[in-house]
Amino acid sequence: MAVYTDISEEELDGLLDQYDLGQALSCKGIAEGVENSNYLLHTEAGYYILTLYEKRVSEEDLPFFLGLMEHLETGGFMSPRPIAAKDGASLKKVAGRPAAIIEFLDGRSIKRVTPQHCTLLGQALARLHTIGSDFKMTRANTLSLSSWRPLYEACLKSDDNTLNTQLFPEIESEITFLESHWPADLPSGVIHADLFPDNIFFLKDKVSGVIDYYFACNDYFAYDLAICVNAWCFENDGSFNITKARKLLNGYRDVRAFSKKELEFLPLLCRGAAVRFLLTRLYDWLNQVDGALVRPKDPLEYLKKLQFHQAVKNVAAYGLD
Amino acid sequence: MAVYTDISEEELDGLLDQYDLGQALSCKGIAEGVENSNYLLHTEAGYYILTLYEKRVSEEDLPFFLGLMEHLETGGFMSPRPIAAKDGASLKKVAGRPAAIIEFLDGRSIKRVTPQHCTLLGQALARLHTIGSDFKMTRANTLSLSSWRPLYEACLKSDDNTLNTQLFPEIESEITFLESHWPADLPSGVIHADLFPDNIFFLKDKVSGVIDYYFACNDYFAYDLAICVNAWCFENDGSFNITKARKLLNGYRDVRAFSKKELEFLPLLCRGAAVRFLLTRLYDWLNQVDGALVRPKDPLEYLKKLQFHQAVKNVAAYGLD
Repeated sequence: MAVYTDISEEELDGLLDQYDLGQALSCKGIAEGVENSNYLLHTEAGYYILTLYEKRVSEEDLPFFLGLMEHLETGGFMSPRPIAAKDGASLKKVAGRPAAIIEFLDGRSIKRVTPQHCTLLGQALARLHTIGSDFKMTRANTLSLSSWRPLYEACLKSDDNTLNTQLFPEIESEITFLESHWPADLPSGVIHADLFPDNIFFLKDKVSGVIDYYFACNDYFAYDLAICVNAWCFENDGSFNITKARKLLNGYRDVRAFSKKELEFLPLLCRGAAVRFLLTRLYDWLNQVDGALVRPKDPLEYLKKLQFHQAVKNVAAYGLD
Repeated sequence: MAVYTDISEEELDGLLDQYDLGQALSCKGIAEGVENSNYLLHTEAGYYILTLYEKRVSEEDLPFFLGLMEHLETGGFMSPRPIAAKDGASLKKVAGRPAAIIEFLDGRSIKRVTPQHCTLLGQALARLHTIGSDFKMTRANTLSLSSWRPLYEACLKSDDNTLNTQLFPEIESEITFLESHWPADLPSGVIHADLFPDNIFFLKDKVSGVIDYYFACNDYFAYDLAICVNAWCFENDGSFNITKARKLLNGYRDVRAFSKKELEFLPLLCRGAAVRFLLTRLYDWLNQVDGALVRPKDPLEYLKKLQFHQAVKNVAAYGLD
């Protein structure tokens, strides 16, 4: 939940003067996204999401994120479309923050994942990869392999020593392993890189929206899938649901075929994806701000996921033949 | 800001089955109201506010609040209308909480109050009093005169002794004064009792909505006005803006005439209204819950308002002749 930046009526009117959306009729802060301030904006032209980008999103990346959303939507993908102002730009400023007005998409994110959701997720992810493949801009994945050791060291530095004995050596040896085994040339392109259940809307048994592109970047397609395996295929008690994984992978395969190498490296990519979320969560955990409204997520959830994938021999463990 | 209770997709579907509003298309937690969980609900029939009543609202009072909103809306007042379910009831249950689906009203609450807003506020308040006067249900004001001494004693008990020397004796002597001077029979009826800027929407220089009736009760009309004088007519630096007060009172008088006695007692009622918010804020301040998402409001703002009214001799100080 997050509404960080307040907008005065004059600021909002000044923003809307730059668009062909009529006057603001209503503007309510919504509890969606933790990185940005989001408002549900009703204007004479319809309903929109107004997003103010807070400090955690780097301003120079915004043209990539907004351009990608527009590219995907134009290609028929269910990304919300950033609304172009009268001057053609979709990135503006309000209340001192970079801001965009974005199409409002119906649908609801789900709390209880079923195997059928995983099929739909897999299909949507493969469509995102396919439609995104001719997007011209690029953005490096700042949270991939090369970032993990520095992130690990930052965690080490901010720890109060209670975690050292067990957790840190385990992470360090995993990073060393990943560094020497990470594949060099899998099929790649634009990936979402944060496709958790919060970021997909379902409506009447279909995917109606995929949102929150603020980690999108260029990387291996199969790494995006590995992030989804971790985010969608484990139960709350930590157990792995092989049916959900099979549905996810088969759903993906309905739209885009896997290369042999992608399947071979999937267990390793799942380990990497687990390390990525383990590290960022651990870092947030160790650097909690007093009085912050957002409670950090449990890092150890991802340690358990990592341990599961460490024991995996091949993709049969994910339900594929 | 508040979203306390999560609703699963099954629970929401089960709720909507009881209404003629079609299926849920979208349901987003909004940062509105601090006492309840509020969602912006989009269904096939339109946009609504779904409110889940949390513990601070007493369940047996809900028929009064919802009945009042319906009565006011029927009478032409800009209260949002509670939507009746198929069985005629507007009070339902979801996720274990009492819940109501309420009309979505356009408009925006303002952060910078102008004298013109105060005119509109005064007119709206008088209309609320007039239209509410034939509402059949009643509810005692649980935060009026008789509650202040117990509330004061509860504050005294939970204080860490840093406030004792100055603040508490001052409050205690004010309560004693108010107890012996409170008027006995001013014109009365249903009052809003919490008409802060947050709770009024403006749109195109008109009042488009008056929301949040969860403190409404039967009490003196002029006491409601006193609450508004305190909430709308002081500047952020603590100074009293007599122009805003004059506009407020004259706006009110456009719609409903004051009795001589109401004007005579207005300074005293303003003192009482200041004590009421001073005490509830002080209580919340002294009883902060660790990790709560809502930061208590500054009680001392109301001490300064109280001191202003203590020095007032008659309504001329509020801009009336």
